Amino acid sequence: MTHKTDIEIAQEIKLQPIEDIAEQAGIDLSDLELYGNYKAKINYTAMDKLKTREDGKLILVTAISPTPAGEGKTTTSVGLGDALHRLGKNTMIAIREPSLGPVFGIKGGAAGGGYAQVVPMEDINLHFTGDFHAIGAANNLLAAMIDNHIHHGNELHIDTRKITWKRVVDMNDRQLRNIVDGLQGKANGVPREDGFDITVASEVMAILCLSNSIDEMKEKLKNIIIGYTYHDEPITAGQLNAHGAMAALLKDALKPNLVQTLEHTPALVHGGPFANIAHGCNSVMATKMARKYADYVVTEAGFGADLGAEKFIDIKCRLSGIEPSAVVLVATVRALKMHGGVSKSDLGEENLPALEAGIPNLMKHLENIQEVYNMPAVVAINKFPTDTEVELALIKEKCLELGVNVVLSDVWANGGAGGEDLAREVIKLTELTQALQYAYELGDSITEKIEKVVRRVYGGNGIELSREAHREIGKLEALGFGNLPICVAKTQYSFSDDPTKLGRPTDFTVNIRNVKVSAGAGFIVVLTGAMMTMPGLPKKPAAENIDVDSKGKIYGLF
Amino acid sequence: MTHKTDIEIAQEIKLQPIEDIAEQAGIDLSDLELYGNYKAKINYTAMDKLKTREDGKLILVTAISPTPAGEGKTTTSVGLGDALHRLGKNTMIAIREPSLGPVFGIKGGAAGGGYAQVVPMEDINLHFTGDFHAIGAANNLLAAMIDNHIHHGNELHIDTRKITWKRVVDMNDRQLRNIVDGLQGKANGVPREDGFDITVASEVMAILCLSNSIDEMKEKLKNIIIGYTYHDEPITAGQLNAHGAMAALLKDALKPNLVQTLEHTPALVHGGPFANIAHGCNSVMATKMARKYADYVVTEAGFGADLGAEKFIDIKCRLSGIEPSAVVLVATVRALKMHGGVSKSDLGEENLPALEAGIPNLMKHLENIQEVYNMPAVVAINKFPTDTEVELALIKEKCLELGVNVVLSDVWANGGAGGEDLAREVIKLTELTQALQYAYELGDSITEKIEKVVRRVYGGNGIELSREAHREIGKLEALGFGNLPICVAKTQYSFSDDPTKLGRPTDFTVNIRNVKVSAGAGFIVVLTGAMMTMPGLPKKPAAENIDVDSKGKIYGLF
Repeated sequence: MTHKTDIEIAQEIKLQPIEDIAEQAGIDLSDLELYGNYKAKINYTAMDKLKTREDGKLILVTAISPTPAGEGKTTTSVGLGDALHRLGKNTMIAIREPSLGPVFGIKGGAAGGGYAQVVPMEDINLHFTGDFHAIGAANNLLAAMIDNHIHHGNELHIDTRKITWKRVVDMNDRQLRNIVDGLQGKANGVPREDGFDITVASEVMAILCLSNSIDEMKEKLKNIIIGYTYHDEPITAGQLNAHGAMAALLKDALKPNLVQTLEHTPALVHGGPFANIAHGCNSVMATKMARKYADYVVTEAGFGADLGAEKFIDIKCRLSGIEPSAVVLVATVRALKMHGGVSKSDLGEENLPALEAGIPNLMKHLENIQEVYNMPAVVAINKFPTDTEVELALIKEKCLELGVNVVLSDVWANGGAGGEDLAREVIKLTELTQALQYAYELGDSITEKIEKVVRRVYGGNGIELSREAHREIGKLEALGFGNLPICVAKTQYSFSDDPTKLGRPTDFTVNIRNVKVSAGAGFIVVLTGAMMTMPGLPKKPAAENIDVDSKGKIYGLF
Repeated sequence: MTHKTDIEIAQEIKLQPIEDIAEQAGIDLSDLELYGNYKAKINYTAMDKLKTREDGKLILVTAISPTPAGEGKTTTSVGLGDALHRLGKNTMIAIREPSLGPVFGIKGGAAGGGYAQVVPMEDINLHFTGDFHAIGAANNLLAAMIDNHIHHGNELHIDTRKITWKRVVDMNDRQLRNIVDGLQGKANGVPREDGFDITVASEVMAILCLSNSIDEMKEKLKNIIIGYTYHDEPITAGQLNAHGAMAALLKDALKPNLVQTLEHTPALVHGGPFANIAHGCNSVMATKMARKYADYVVTEAGFGADLGAEKFIDIKCRLSGIEPSAVVLVATVRALKMHGGVSKSDLGEENLPALEAGIPNLMKHLENIQEVYNMPAVVAINKFPTDTEVELALIKEKCLELGVNVVLSDVWANGGAGGEDLAREVIKLTELTQALQYAYELGDSITEKIEKVVRRVYGGNGIELSREAHREIGKLEALGFGNLPICVAKTQYSFSDDPTKLGRPTDFTVNIRNVKVSAGAGFIVVLTGAMMTMPGLPKKPAAENIDVDSKGKIYGLF
């Protein structure tokens, strides 16, 4: 049997017109703006009419610490949505939009996989409805206005060595990480060190995803700090009068995008901030809208639960007043064996000792969900053909010690039908009414917040602040940013700040290199080690295999 | 009486749903892909069904050499389309898409003006259907793949000092004109001199606008020369396997965009290459499509007729087999007085001697249309309140010497009703059947082609080739590019290469600084003087006045 690729599966399914999907979901067609026949934006004005409706139950899909073996978080999210839909539940999926960068790099597409995908996957992976391009344009307009201000006399006394605002491009392009621009004389700008990030790393992306309205978005854009003066005073986008035009560029990008799954479950695919220097969740606007239209909303957060779920709850939920009703923790037998020390090439073999050594990673994430956040959880094992009965039994046994059920998910191969057990367990969990708790309080000092996350969520002994971090924390608290939530930029591969410490590391300290404020988005980024905000392409980029035929059909996306 | 701004006028008109516009235009709704309620793309597959239809008559709108007084070419094009529509003719407009750069710089929007606009003007000016972002992404994917190839070993031996492919951004950003990138060590690329152009200057834009199909576009993308080896051998996008993914990024951008005028005349607004280093016309795809749907198609070309009409005919028409039936030459009394030496502040006063001194600019353009290209012409005077009867009479008298009628156009103030006289004259001209001629033959040597354009179209004595240009011409002819048409990058303000020589300069020589091949687009760019391919923002950018309200309504676009 030869396996079909994701794009082949996606292209075989006959999509329903997006108006039909909208109609089934109870979306007023007058609130719909079509983008072709299978994509649409939903106008924010829809929210006004929905105000009095009860909110549907929100299910967060998160995962163990990621490994190169892959966990299938988006696949599980989509499949769970389809399963709830099959069980007759009024369901909507709310997940992130993929970046163009990985599409042309190693990863290929990012819209689920197998028989659990959102479609049209080619469009979702290429431009989609233009949101990321709009975010890039807004980001780069501000950058151009900064340098233009300096070029024309620098009335605000911006110190060109202290500009923190970078330009962006939605492309993996390492050549642009560190540049010197403004070269070749007076007519061509002011020479300075500069650099590009990938679009998803832009603070504009985080702002769009945390805004409940255009007005709120404009206010956040206005508050962006672009750098500092010679006297270390912050300079904002508002001082450059850039926020209005930036918001104008983003007016459509703020509208959630409606698509469907292969099984015609409605899905809002909207926003996609980085999960390290930003909070890694789809937009607040889409999540809130989905809860108005559906009784069950499945959403996901980036990376493992220590980063994704932590930020989902401590940043997104807290700032927007959203509460989830249950958490699905995705794991695979293979990935847990990697956490137990098995190399990728040996994952096909049964290995109980390695599995047992890896399971504590899963346990720690579960404990966090239960004890730190007070949420009910289920473990979804994303099924692989090489999994054995005894391996699965071992995972079940360990999870039961925490009172958590383990359910096999076979949505990759079977779509929603492969996720019905998971869906039933999720429905059961959402009947419980547990009140969400946070890992720290906003009133804690910045240092306390970081320490609480490190001790409570990561299981570390504490933190080591660099001299720069210490000084910067003082500066940010003096500037009045002490009450913001924190957003830790840490390796996703380990609970610690050392990517080689797999499983459940103990007895470690997290080194805090520096902190910086994202004053627009409204959080303080805590940097542990060097964070890559502009990926590079591999020696043979995926782009080399991508093609399109004379009818516009795309090939070679995975 | 206070004047309404363009955006105020545009926002007062109730638009028709774009499906209604399509239906009236005879567009099969199954070929339509909606982008919101008032924009749509037309699938290229539509062309297959239309093959047997007769082509409508094509009317080219061009202008005298531009001045800061403004001519109103797009306004006239839109108004003429509306006038033909009012006279009961089955009409379609086919014009260029505006760039984001000027929107945030000085110029404001670019979708006509007054009561002769294409709408929704805010959307057309901001992102529209994402075509320019797609072009930017395709351009920048190739750039990333070039530097990635070099980073991973440079098997093709690309000389980093001879890379001609630049990155682009759709923004006026002088800071990016000249940069050094790939800095800070081995992991971050290879240090080299580099720079950004604005997106409309990308060769990808020219390629998209000259392609009749995806396959042809892919072939052109494959042929792009990105630079040269240490041994001066050209390296193409095809050698980097970039063309398939680039074409995939462009699959929707290649589809013409349907919108409407304020009077609900259908308009295809598609593509927008620079008019200096590229050919400055809307897409071949849109022009051909419009001629299948309509009996009269109004199109325009960039800058004055010496650049815009010349390239429209010698490049676009020749390469695509299109022929216009009549040419409208737009002028204003004010602009002609500027050509006669009057400064902008004094244009409100009647000044017959200055007008008489400026009219030869108009005459030379008319002679070119008649004698070089063998096309019937009409002069459209875009009416201003300060124009006097005697001034208009003088222009009419001079034009009649060439057998050309002069018609007043008042479409800015009165929409289509203000263009009916012009429309009637145009209809009359299109009844004549004159065979299009070119300014040079493709078989001429590169030098001969340049000389013919300079002597015949510009009225110069000849050319002066720099040493570099001479050497490069030899190289390009040796590489087999001798049979391509030429695309002269020259100041738009004068027939000569000196922007201060207004009116009809004589006895001048054009200095050819260099030539370069756009092997993908299929023309040789002839550089006279320095060409700006990345504009800057003014001290107070238009962006500072742009805003959006809580409902998504845009303010401050002009």
